[in-house]
Amino acid sequence: ELQLNLEQIEKGGFEHFMLKEIYEQPEAILDTFRGRLKADEAIIKMAGVEDNMKRFLNADRIIVVACGTSWHAGLVSEYIFEDLARIPVEVEYASEFRYRNPVITDKDIVIAISQSGETADTLAAIKLAKSKGAFVFGVCNVVGSSIARETHTGAYTHAGPEIGVASTKAFTTQITVLTLMALRLARAKGTITSSEFRHHLIELELIPDKVREVLESNEYIKEIAASYKDSKNFLYLGRGYNFPVALEGALKLKEISYIHAEGYPAAEMKHGPIALIDEFMPVVVIATNKGHYDKIVSNIQEIKSRNGKIIAVVTKGDVDVRNIADHVIEVPETMEALTPMLTTIPLQLLSYHIAVMLGKNVDQPRNLAKAVTVE
Amino acid sequence: ELQLNLEQIEKGGFEHFMLKEIYEQPEAILDTFRGRLKADEAIIKMAGVEDNMKRFLNADRIIVVACGTSWHAGLVSEYIFEDLARIPVEVEYASEFRYRNPVITDKDIVIAISQSGETADTLAAIKLAKSKGAFVFGVCNVVGSSIARETHTGAYTHAGPEIGVASTKAFTTQITVLTLMALRLARAKGTITSSEFRHHLIELELIPDKVREVLESNEYIKEIAASYKDSKNFLYLGRGYNFPVALEGALKLKEISYIHAEGYPAAEMKHGPIALIDEFMPVVVIATNKGHYDKIVSNIQEIKSRNGKIIAVVTKGDVDVRNIADHVIEVPETMEALTPMLTTIPLQLLSYHIAVMLGKNVDQPRNLAKAVTVE
Repeated sequence: ELQLNLEQIEKGGFEHFMLKEIYEQPEAILDTFRGRLKADEAIIKMAGVEDNMKRFLNADRIIVVACGTSWHAGLVSEYIFEDLARIPVEVEYASEFRYRNPVITDKDIVIAISQSGETADTLAAIKLAKSKGAFVFGVCNVVGSSIARETHTGAYTHAGPEIGVASTKAFTTQITVLTLMALRLARAKGTITSSEFRHHLIELELIPDKVREVLESNEYIKEIAASYKDSKNFLYLGRGYNFPVALEGALKLKEISYIHAEGYPAAEMKHGPIALIDEFMPVVVIATNKGHYDKIVSNIQEIKSRNGKIIAVVTKGDVDVRNIADHVIEVPETMEALTPMLTTIPLQLLSYHIAVMLGKNVDQPRNLAKAVTVE
Repeated sequence: ELQLNLEQIEKGGFEHFMLKEIYEQPEAILDTFRGRLKADEAIIKMAGVEDNMKRFLNADRIIVVACGTSWHAGLVSEYIFEDLARIPVEVEYASEFRYRNPVITDKDIVIAISQSGETADTLAAIKLAKSKGAFVFGVCNVVGSSIARETHTGAYTHAGPEIGVASTKAFTTQITVLTLMALRLARAKGTITSSEFRHHLIELELIPDKVREVLESNEYIKEIAASYKDSKNFLYLGRGYNFPVALEGALKLKEISYIHAEGYPAAEMKHGPIALIDEFMPVVVIATNKGHYDKIVSNIQEIKSRNGKIIAVVTKGDVDVRNIADHVIEVPETMEALTPMLTTIPLQLLSYHIAVMLGKNVDQPRNLAKAVTVE
């Protein structure tokens, strides 16, 4: 009984750790900013980057190695690094990278991402990269973890302990760290102007409050969850920065509700998956007003014309998608590169409520472990 | 009536174009070899590569742009180019590449893959790459198509007309062309020895006959299809060279049977998808005896311990997987880099038979067009 009470205290009034951790995201992102982001002074300070600036500036490319949710954070970072800092990025499944005799040189920088810092495949990928002379930068949440120790340097996410097996705040803080890095490098390389840099920093600083605002849609998202909880299959679509968010949204639903959900870049629909669409296949679409909005509106129209049900994540005040979609969840406006930190939140909540309604063990889904410490 | 008779003649005794085209693969691969592969003389000749050898040898990296099935062929080629020719390869969805302000320079080589040569997103990606100074090499099936004309040079697949909307022989001949290219470049770069080169060529030349041998499993695969045709969801797993084959196998099933099938690199299972596994979720696993066989055997054991049903594609004479899997389909032994050309075949047949048994329009699946000429 004492154990039970302790757990209730740890959950801080929330029914599950996962929900608590979803709600902790504004604070977790702030904690990850702390000491690094000074928007008013137009400064980003990250020791692991500053101390190795020459390496970063001379790097031929960045190779990201990760698994699962961390791999999705890596995919988001590919867009940010290439778009802002103009460094070619290759994102690899750690398990594939380590076994496929990859081309790596001492001019490559490897970024390894892992919440636990103990992911076996990622750790092995790091060792391989180091043996080929690459410089390895770690992005971990657990201080002093194996990956934190095995990498040359790195930057911690300050998400705090994550208990729910399905990662939430670890993901958004990983994106936070990677965004800070990309912006810092973009400034150093001169690939963005000082006013663009400042603008990004000011917008970045507003993200925690905007996440808080998204969380206010919780009750509405719960209603949507009630309508779709019995669906056996979902598709998740996004473009650009929000393509990896679609993958991550689908993974959350898989992990905790055991519903088969799959993410796709929206334009790939026509190359196969659109054959699946009918009234029994809800489609979650991220359709914020930047990032080729008109293209995604046309994707949504195609789905509707095949009787698909649409749940869309849109920018506040959106009109066009609202006219077509069955449900729209609004997120506040921000810069395109920062949208993933907002659009991810409703997808976390949707998965959470569906899983709870289906009576699943949200914090401890079947077959899954919090840290995958074996291959 | 005349029309009907003509179509019957065109189908050459097969019930559908797709089945005819699956069976045409040994000849299509041979046609794609013709004039290029001379195993006895240890020669690969491809004009588009020879004429631009300096560019290829100096390239910083290869960027592959494609959509759908062609994108899967690109993923296979990433393994071949990196493994044999030691050239870093980045594989991009054309639709994402064209809109994301990618980093491209005149030291990059872009390979654009498209059966029809008319894929709108791929064509736009080519134009973007050219505008940034990249050299663009096309791999198309349709002679004189827009992509063939828009690229600097290229190599045709000689698959002949592909009528079935779900691509089969186009995929295997795309892999054929890309394998020839990778081997030619590996030889020129000296990243494989002359005896390794010769060995690959000899094995490559045997592939058409080995494809023929795989086709002999057709009746057995039909029996497997009958057992699983009512499943609502499938997973497809592979590692290394056969990870893209898993993606392609899943896409075939989606396209023509409208069953939700998803491909994954096998090791990623533990990072989420394994939560989906129960007795209602058949898992197709490619488990040939090269490419970390012991790892994939352990993945199969995990699935079995969660009551999953396993359909495994294995190397002739396999014992270990046979002892665990519910069904095993054998393919002849070959070199690891060449396995995709064999392991793809049973997955095509499995999808075909399931779709036919479900009464679907195999050659003209709903919502899909043969060439995606609009965005």
